[in-house]
Amino acid sequence: VDADGVVTLTGDRYGLCGQKLPYLLPWVERTMGIAIPLTGLHTPHYPPAIPESRLPQSVAQALAQILAPEQILTEGVQRLRRGHGQTQEEMYAIKYGTLARVPDVVVLPHSEAQVVALMELAQRHDVCLLPYGGGTSVTEALRCRADEDRCIIAVDMAKMNRILWVDPINRMACIEAGAVGRHIQAALKSQGFTMGHEPDSIEFSTLGGWIATHASGMKRNKYGNIEELVLDMNVVTPKGVMSRQQVAPRESAGMDVRRAMFGSEGTLGIITQAVVKLYDLPAVQQYGSVIFPSFEDGVAFLYELTQKNVLPVSVRLVDNIQFQLSQALKGEKKGLQAFKSQAEKLFVTRIKGFDPERMVACTMVYEGSEEEVARQQKEVLALAAQHRGINGGPQNGERGYQLTFGIAYIRDFVMNHYLLAESFETSVPWSRVLERCDRVKRRVEREHAARKLPGRPLITARVTQMYATGVAVYFYFAYFFKGVADPSGTYSAIEAAAREEILAAGGSISHHHGVGALRRAFLPKIMSEAALTLRAETQRAFDPKGVLTANCQPNHKAAQH
Amino acid sequence: VDADGVVTLTGDRYGLCGQKLPYLLPWVERTMGIAIPLTGLHTPHYPPAIPESRLPQSVAQALAQILAPEQILTEGVQRLRRGHGQTQEEMYAIKYGTLARVPDVVVLPHSEAQVVALMELAQRHDVCLLPYGGGTSVTEALRCRADEDRCIIAVDMAKMNRILWVDPINRMACIEAGAVGRHIQAALKSQGFTMGHEPDSIEFSTLGGWIATHASGMKRNKYGNIEELVLDMNVVTPKGVMSRQQVAPRESAGMDVRRAMFGSEGTLGIITQAVVKLYDLPAVQQYGSVIFPSFEDGVAFLYELTQKNVLPVSVRLVDNIQFQLSQALKGEKKGLQAFKSQAEKLFVTRIKGFDPERMVACTMVYEGSEEEVARQQKEVLALAAQHRGINGGPQNGERGYQLTFGIAYIRDFVMNHYLLAESFETSVPWSRVLERCDRVKRRVEREHAARKLPGRPLITARVTQMYATGVAVYFYFAYFFKGVADPSGTYSAIEAAAREEILAAGGSISHHHGVGALRRAFLPKIMSEAALTLRAETQRAFDPKGVLTANCQPNHKAAQH
Repeated sequence: VDADGVVTLTGDRYGLCGQKLPYLLPWVERTMGIAIPLTGLHTPHYPPAIPESRLPQSVAQALAQILAPEQILTEGVQRLRRGHGQTQEEMYAIKYGTLARVPDVVVLPHSEAQVVALMELAQRHDVCLLPYGGGTSVTEALRCRADEDRCIIAVDMAKMNRILWVDPINRMACIEAGAVGRHIQAALKSQGFTMGHEPDSIEFSTLGGWIATHASGMKRNKYGNIEELVLDMNVVTPKGVMSRQQVAPRESAGMDVRRAMFGSEGTLGIITQAVVKLYDLPAVQQYGSVIFPSFEDGVAFLYELTQKNVLPVSVRLVDNIQFQLSQALKGEKKGLQAFKSQAEKLFVTRIKGFDPERMVACTMVYEGSEEEVARQQKEVLALAAQHRGINGGPQNGERGYQLTFGIAYIRDFVMNHYLLAESFETSVPWSRVLERCDRVKRRVEREHAARKLPGRPLITARVTQMYATGVAVYFYFAYFFKGVADPSGTYSAIEAAAREEILAAGGSISHHHGVGALRRAFLPKIMSEAALTLRAETQRAFDPKGVLTANCQPNHKAAQH
Repeated sequence: VDADGVVTLTGDRYGLCGQKLPYLLPWVERTMGIAIPLTGLHTPHYPPAIPESRLPQSVAQALAQILAPEQILTEGVQRLRRGHGQTQEEMYAIKYGTLARVPDVVVLPHSEAQVVALMELAQRHDVCLLPYGGGTSVTEALRCRADEDRCIIAVDMAKMNRILWVDPINRMACIEAGAVGRHIQAALKSQGFTMGHEPDSIEFSTLGGWIATHASGMKRNKYGNIEELVLDMNVVTPKGVMSRQQVAPRESAGMDVRRAMFGSEGTLGIITQAVVKLYDLPAVQQYGSVIFPSFEDGVAFLYELTQKNVLPVSVRLVDNIQFQLSQALKGEKKGLQAFKSQAEKLFVTRIKGFDPERMVACTMVYEGSEEEVARQQKEVLALAAQHRGINGGPQNGERGYQLTFGIAYIRDFVMNHYLLAESFETSVPWSRVLERCDRVKRRVEREHAARKLPGRPLITARVTQMYATGVAVYFYFAYFFKGVADPSGTYSAIEAAAREEILAAGGSISHHHGVGALRRAFLPKIMSEAALTLRAETQRAFDPKGVLTANCQPNHKAAQH
């Protein structure tokens, strides 16, 4: 940020590096009714004080029997990195506070055999294992319990990142669990395939993490969510290696314990590899966008699109605030480009009569053969027109997707300017989408006002996935915390209130982020006592000694008491 | 069957009643190299001797506190009916032998509360509950262990068959687990919807049974298999009622214990109701068929169809023997119809040069709007032509599907004529389909020959489901047992050999029938010891007293010892 409040992007991977964003801060100030300080910043002091390692000599010796020296990390910053994810609480804590407990040692196994040896070691020495993938958890699933007295070993899967085999005929690949999304994507692409799983975290998140969090990718309309993409997996559990002798396209072989791994969040075992489906790379990929006069029109359009089953590979609907944000994120305009942009805006607002404070945008990705993409576009635009939508062109579509990737970076730097921002998400039946978005927004505003916080909260919603029965909704909430006593705790309290509002009328606890430690208190609100008991006891069946409970998972403890 | 060996169909529901089948028995005799006796039949003596009920007075009194007298059945035939499924072993036993153990009493709860009361009673009195849906199990999942000394209560879910609510906006319905497929279909149809799940057993099988067996319907290309159709369920477990406060389109809420119910085969709890997805009834449904010169051509066609993702709602490929069987099942031809049929045959065999001993047929069902169906048909026929396929028309397609529904009836009556027949199925990657079908057939022939059984075995395969990664294959095997000492045991031994052959080269233990008692011995061949242990211990977590283990499930016992 320069002295004029012009933001310049740096260092991200999406082709935006060096771009100047002159409209961003002015828009934020106007929308939130605040003045963002450009001096006297809230300067972070990373790294924070890091708790001493409690690695016992006996465990260190046992580790040295299994792993080479370079596979064992004890430096504070290394241990810190494996002891947190990306929630605002964690980011705020490492920048401005401390973490009470982090892993005592980090290990990087090279093979399933080494993971097995680590699991045996953990049980023998009564220590904890904390599986670590890309570190993109947003549920405090990596955060160590402050009262965990046992030694905690973070098992970083980064070295288990190979594609073990590709079967081009049967369209399967066996991939190690530590492989990172963008590497999987690139490696498969070189062979003409994709697994089609593209979560917003694809830059860092891993195959094992996708399974453990029950992840969803933006292209699930075509490829499915993670549970539909994984055909088999190997898991090192405290009871041994859960594996299969063969990979079936689909089977009925009694209760399938592998299914428990989806959403297991590191508590049942360490996933070492998985067999996933492969798809041909699409011949054509094309962005698109449609502008609607209101969020209501957009939702009605999405509903019809879904029921008619003409969904492009990805469709998203952003509300007015997020639409404005995406406009504010535009770079400097020059010459013809500026003229065209202005003319478009005039057309939409003057000629079509769209209200700039109400209009919203839908962004799409189309994939397939040239004919398929052309047919999809035609069908989508025809339906959109019936809902008063007008074609916004491919560039606006592409910008919408880039915003998603860039927003985590923006979130991190604006913290220095006293802005705390975070996302949370849910899924909800169609009939409740509008009510739900509205109630969450109003609740956040009420909570914000009740605490007499400065300015106005920024709260915005995006519909990111469509199902025949409902949608996933993604919220961003930001507030200005200059002068606020406990910025992070205040944020958490407001977010918890929003979650209550979500659950109260049929929204889910999470669509794809998961529960972790962050949302565990809400579990009794969504499932019966027997369901909770069965979860806890299944966890105990997998892990009777609680080797995998360093990350605040309550189930095991619940079962014991 | 009349004195000339002409079969006349009676009493089935598929519009074939009264139809004469003059070609069936001659074809069977020619193919199997046998003479089917029309007199001196192998007459069944149903019902067999039925074991006395061991219902203790105390349990009878406790049941009377929960249920009305008409909800409690103690007659022998009623108990027998709930103590077996439809395997050849079970059908042979009830016709020509006995069952060593059947339930001691049958109860028909009306509500989830009554099921809860039964579960409590069972735990208090140390008796077993055996959940019963439509009785169409083909895995001996209903057969009671001969050495089960505890009282066995069959819980017939027939009275819990209501559609509790339909949500037309969010496309969901909540249906009690005892509802039978064809009733669900009719009830939803009257409201303009379908759940799209059409297993071949739809006439009798229930929603609860579909979940417990991890069922697959013939239209899964469009609607998905049962696990993709069920959004939520209530289960009465020994630990209480597993239920949720809301139904999410999709969620990430940690390990989801409901998923354990798919394939649970009655061992984890009694499913009482489920929320399922709804789809609009299609505007058009149309059958189709294509004739290919060989099975190899047909498989190559299916592979391309699948990879190009232009699958009609159902596609099946039958091998030459099954193609011949469907021709032999044609009724009497008269006038123009006979002429056309003859002309078609001449065209295929004379003009196109197809070998009647090698040609095969693919049958399809198309669904959608008129345009969609027309487009699908065009695409499918164009692809078929590239694989030397010629259009066989809609009637041959429809006949193919009717054969599937009728074959269970045929299987039952031919037993009187010393023919024992049964199906078994698997799923297998694409690259192994041809090898697998061939090896199973040759293995059955070898096993048949080694036992010096009369004539030749009839063994035939059908590809019934296509996935990007492989297919489901359905086999029928029949043999002539006149003069054979242990007809049913001999069949089982040959089927077990075929299963070994399937597993040995990457076929699954079952695609959708399940494991039950019939195939449990094969489990260690498909999964690791740890996976078996975790299954058993998860089962024990649900059911520590083994209330749900009357049906020969070995997991629980394995975990105890």
